[in-house]
Amino acid sequence: MGDDTGVETARAAELNDQSSSGDNRKEVDIYPLSCYYFGSKEAIVFKDETLSDRVKRMKSNFAAYGLRTSVEAVILVELFKHPHILLLQVRNSIFKLPGGRLRPGESDIDGLRRKLSRKLSASDAGDEAEWEVGECLGMWWRHDFETLLYPYLPPNVKKPKECAKLFLVRLPESRKFIVPQNLKLLAVPLCQVHENQKTYGPVISGVPQLLSKFSINIVDT
Amino acid sequence: MGDDTGVETARAAELNDQSSSGDNRKEVDIYPLSCYYFGSKEAIVFKDETLSDRVKRMKSNFAAYGLRTSVEAVILVELFKHPHILLLQVRNSIFKLPGGRLRPGESDIDGLRRKLSRKLSASDAGDEAEWEVGECLGMWWRHDFETLLYPYLPPNVKKPKECAKLFLVRLPESRKFIVPQNLKLLAVPLCQVHENQKTYGPVISGVPQLLSKFSINIVDT
Repeated sequence: MGDDTGVETARAAELNDQSSSGDNRKEVDIYPLSCYYFGSKEAIVFKDETLSDRVKRMKSNFAAYGLRTSVEAVILVELFKHPHILLLQVRNSIFKLPGGRLRPGESDIDGLRRKLSRKLSASDAGDEAEWEVGECLGMWWRHDFETLLYPYLPPNVKKPKECAKLFLVRLPESRKFIVPQNLKLLAVPLCQVHENQKTYGPVISGVPQLLSKFSINIVDT
Repeated sequence: MGDDTGVETARAAELNDQSSSGDNRKEVDIYPLSCYYFGSKEAIVFKDETLSDRVKRMKSNFAAYGLRTSVEAVILVELFKHPHILLLQVRNSIFKLPGGRLRPGESDIDGLRRKLSRKLSASDAGDEAEWEVGECLGMWWRHDFETLLYPYLPPNVKKPKECAKLFLVRLPESRKFIVPQNLKLLAVPLCQVHENQKTYGPVISGVPQLLSKFSINIVDT
């Protein structure tokens, strides 16, 4: 217990200090992975088979609708007493945050709920409102069709092609995840994601930093 | 003007969407570097001459006071229409955010104001209250005396040795910066800092991400 008390005191001091200094840092409650049920449903159709298809589709969509806005969810669970982030794996290689592109005129929250239901719920569930979309954690910009995403918009980039916004989505104490057969849902420890750009790309590998201002409470159930 | 209008619309859409979706993203007004006056004052004494001195001092302080908490300021100015971050350079090599260690019992805000006045104001200015300390942007943990900082605290780390908290500090439209002779104050573009861990270390190189959720307004003066 001696050691445990040490860190609890440190974390508690943290919390006290937050409330007294009145800034807007917040807590996030996370629940064990075992609180959730995981099932599968029919595969979804991927729109792009190759990178050049993707660029072609982005270009025609940009011509028709302008800036592409995508919304992505940061969803946490607990495993081995460490926060894990839920990632979708496509074709055994690419990792993605659950989310996707907004329809023209759709709000961030409505769009993210729709995407989460499509990728993580039974298709006829109609549970979109059940996704608790919280704070925007960060925004990444694609300066041109074939460039990476950056967390800023330089002055010479007058017409960015995509804006990807990350939102914290808090889970309830239990729920079902129903995932298309051709996607894998994984829980990856924050410590594995941190600075691991090679595997997870610049956006996901920066998520631990974006979360660092939150106090993450592991709830014992 | 054609191109300019494009990006203004993109940025404005961004802003509208924020207010309608009701999340807590915020704006930051930044002013041109030319709005500020820079002067120098007497050198300050550096406590650690070598890395091993530093580790020795951290150990004795930990034994006496427990967890070391340091507070650091993210301060922005505009140059060439791009946000620049103010960094202090020590001995022509190490880059640091302005800030430092809290005294036992001192609040984050009081401590950061004291440190900012010591390193960036005339020593007899008594202008500590003039520093507008805003949101906590992130927290980094030193798991042991000789390890780097990480943006999370794994379950096996029961007694972290240091917690470094980053705060956004908004500048007024003009002010004087009076910097000790043995420190250099630099304005570095966000795009140069981003992912440039080799030069700036893990904490500073991640600042552009932490700022990405804010709308940065360049104010014409």
